[in-house]
Amino acid sequence: MKTHTHYITINTNKRVDFVRLTPKIQEIVDKSNIKEGIVLVNPMHITASIYINDNEQGLIKDYQEWLEKLAPKDKDYHHHLTGEDNGWSHLWRTVMGREVTVAITKGELDLGPWEEIFYAEFDGQRNKKILVKVLGA
Amino acid sequence: MKTHTHYITINTNKRVDFVRLTPKIQEIVDKSNIKEGIVLVNPMHITASIYINDNEQGLIKDYQEWLEKLAPKDKDYHHHLTGEDNGWSHLWRTVMGREVTVAITKGELDLGPWEEIFYAEFDGQRNKKILVKVLGA
Amino acid sequence: MKTHTHYITINTNKRVDFVRLTPKIQEIVDKSNIKEGIVLVNPMHITASIYINDNEQGLIKDYQEWLEKLAPKDKDYHHHLTGEDNGWSHLWRTVMGREVTVAITKGELDLGPWEEIFYAEFDGQRNKKILVKVLGA
Repeated sequence: MKTHTHYITINTNKRVDFVRLTPKIQEIVDKSNIKEGIVLVNPMHITASIYINDNEQGLIKDYQEWLEKLAPKDKDYHHHLTGEDNGWSHLWRTVMGREVTVAITKGELDLGPWEEIFYAEFDGQRNKKILVKVLGA
Repeated sequence: MKTHTHYITINTNKRVDFVRLTPKIQEIVDKSNIKEGIVLVNPMHITASIYINDNEQGLIKDYQEWLEKLAPKDKDYHHHLTGEDNGWSHLWRTVMGREVTVAITKGELDLGPWEEIFYAEFDGQRNKKILVKVLGA
Repeated sequence: MKTHTHYITINTNKRVDFVRLTPKIQEIVDKSNIKEGIVLVNPMHITASIYINDNEQGLIKDYQEWLEKLAPKDKDYHHHLTGEDNGWSHLWRTVMGREVTVAITKGELDLGPWEEIFYAEFDGQRNKKILVKVLGA
């Protein structure tokens, strides 16, 4: 069994941002030389999400309006008593999920035709790390 | 380390449907001859979900009413500007999650007594694929 | 490839409760003697969740108020026709997610500085099991 570990550093211009990661993850899988297995991708921060869905700007707007409805930014969260103002960021990340595990088949990310790996940032404008762990043979 | 890859094709009669997959996934694990490891199950489409919960028809109704409340079907989603009418399907799948990873112990899916693997379709009535990747020894 | 399987038994005093698991999971990884790989952690029950987020009591209160808003306890769920009164517990667990997969690097859980593994119980006061499956080399 082989493993390969890679850390991506990311710093978004906007506090809330969506970044397509698919080509970068394929590149890391290529470097790992693992042909059959899985790759785990997760943010190392708790106000960001890795998820898989469509690379379509309308949907990305829908996500933001919908998350705002489910967990409004301007609510007085208990978490804000710590001095933070990102209670909503933790809840948004909870809806979108922390991580994805993607199969690798014949050296390629085994994704459907519209599946794209995204990094969703909900408290950006500073350096954040993403962990990519490849496992297989 | 061994791996085994299988694609299930599914076509539901209804646009929204829930299909219990547990026996089919166990069958694939049996064929893989993997006794200790994990199995990753994910749809290859972005308007469907693999999740684990109760095989109980009341709960399945509750899920549908609840998802409709969280993300109504008749809203004008930005995503619909592409010509699609499935904005809600993407959001429902986001709530329910994309994938599950299940442990395999002594050749069996290591599930609790009420845990059942489900495929939830939110934009069906056409062929969809599900990826099953088994990994272990 | 090595694997290691461990079952944790937990019984919370309160029906809804949040228990930090990180040190216990690291201990199990230590025992497995696996230095590079992954650990899958999932409840074996369908009204509980394993998730990763902040070890901060304000946020834990926010989670409970938010889940109550998304899926109120006192609603007449279809699931209650079975005699159960935990329809909301199934929905809360769906929002929070079932499982986490955590990378292991050089024998350590490869977590960011604020990432903590939590068990969230939504129908407790009885024995529940958590599955920990370690996989790697």
